[in-house]
Amino acid sequence: MASLGPNIDELMQALRCLPGVGPKSAQRMTFQLLERNRDGAERLMLSLQAALQNVRHCQRCRILSETELCSRCSDPDRRQDQLCIVEMPSDVLAIEQATAYQGQYFVLNGHLSPLDGIGPETLGIPTLIRWLDSQETEEIILATNPTVEGEATAHYISELARARQIRVTRLAHGIPLGGELEYVDSTTLSHAFAGRGTV
Amino acid sequence: MASLGPNIDELMQALRCLPGVGPKSAQRMTFQLLERNRDGAERLMLSLQAALQNVRHCQRCRILSETELCSRCSDPDRRQDQLCIVEMPSDVLAIEQATAYQGQYFVLNGHLSPLDGIGPETLGIPTLIRWLDSQETEEIILATNPTVEGEATAHYISELARARQIRVTRLAHGIPLGGELEYVDSTTLSHAFAGRGTV
Ligand SMILES: [Zn+2]
Ligand SMILES: [Zn+2]
Repeated sequence: MASLGPNIDELMQALRCLPGVGPKSAQRMTFQLLERNRDGAERLMLSLQAALQNVRHCQRCRILSETELCSRCSDPDRRQDQLCIVEMPSDVLAIEQATAYQGQYFVLNGHLSPLDGIGPETLGIPTLIRWLDSQETEEIILATNPTVEGEATAHYISELARARQIRVTRLAHGIPLGGELEYVDSTTLSHAFAGRGTV
Repeated sequence: MASLGPNIDELMQALRCLPGVGPKSAQRMTFQLLERNRDGAERLMLSLQAALQNVRHCQRCRILSETELCSRCSDPDRRQDQLCIVEMPSDVLAIEQATAYQGQYFVLNGHLSPLDGIGPETLGIPTLIRWLDSQETEEIILATNPTVEGEATAHYISELARARQIRVTRLAHGIPLGGELEYVDSTTLSHAFAGRGTV
């Protein structure tokens, strides 16, 4: 492909670090930013700069945070004895939005994946162990994803909890509300069937 | 949706200026950049900064360029008497890559669209008129898109050319090479049928 100049080429390349952006979309984005939306390009540049400078991780729960402790960890009104463990920051936002949960969170920022070199250290398990050993925890809610890696990670953590006699719960599997039976995948359906309850 | 902090929110908002990026992808991109790829985020920030500073338009053909005249306009070996008019910078790259064309280009950076306030001024038509009046042009190749707006824009420019007795050509319409007849839309098929040639 012919080049329009080194800065334009470099911008196209840099945009490809965004998830889901291939060479064609990177080119479209580059022309859009430079041709029609320089204000948007400048806003994006400044917001990247500010975020890189100011966004760190909460020292307690490891969620992305602009303060040393995130707003949930520094809220004295939340229960201290419930701990919900999730894979990603977006999971915290989803649970906060959907439920009335008022306990603590711990964000793994991933799941165990030995082949990718992601072990307990990367997921902050030493920090989690210090947490469990230093403060009373009544219940650990394992809210990792229902994938092979998420289940393996949940199993690993449940062993840590069991060794400390902490009760462990797991989000219920089943038919999504409003979902139609015939469109639910068979693993979910079999889970839901086995976990049926009296009405 | 709960907020993780003002800088994080602002980055999510800013990413939505990219074409095809809605709230969900903006959130995914934000977490990806801040959680897993800070080097990529920094590279994107620096490349936006450099591009905003260094990328302007070629003063002759209006393509995005980092120099006053683009590489094609400053190439003395290209024919001066052929002028290909396109809507977008990407069209120049596509034609350069696909054909042996060695003439000049003029980039409209859009098409006539009165409802969006895009008239001849916005498309650089005054510059184009000065070009046509100041230098010998043997042929104008109208390579705008085969859409209603592209055709209207082509018609407008062909009137300018006709008034100056300049020959105007248009890219041929027809069945794409390797395309199967039954998958070609009916307008294209009717064009191709009407334009059939002896073999
Ligand atoms: Zn926190
Ligand atoms: Zn040029």
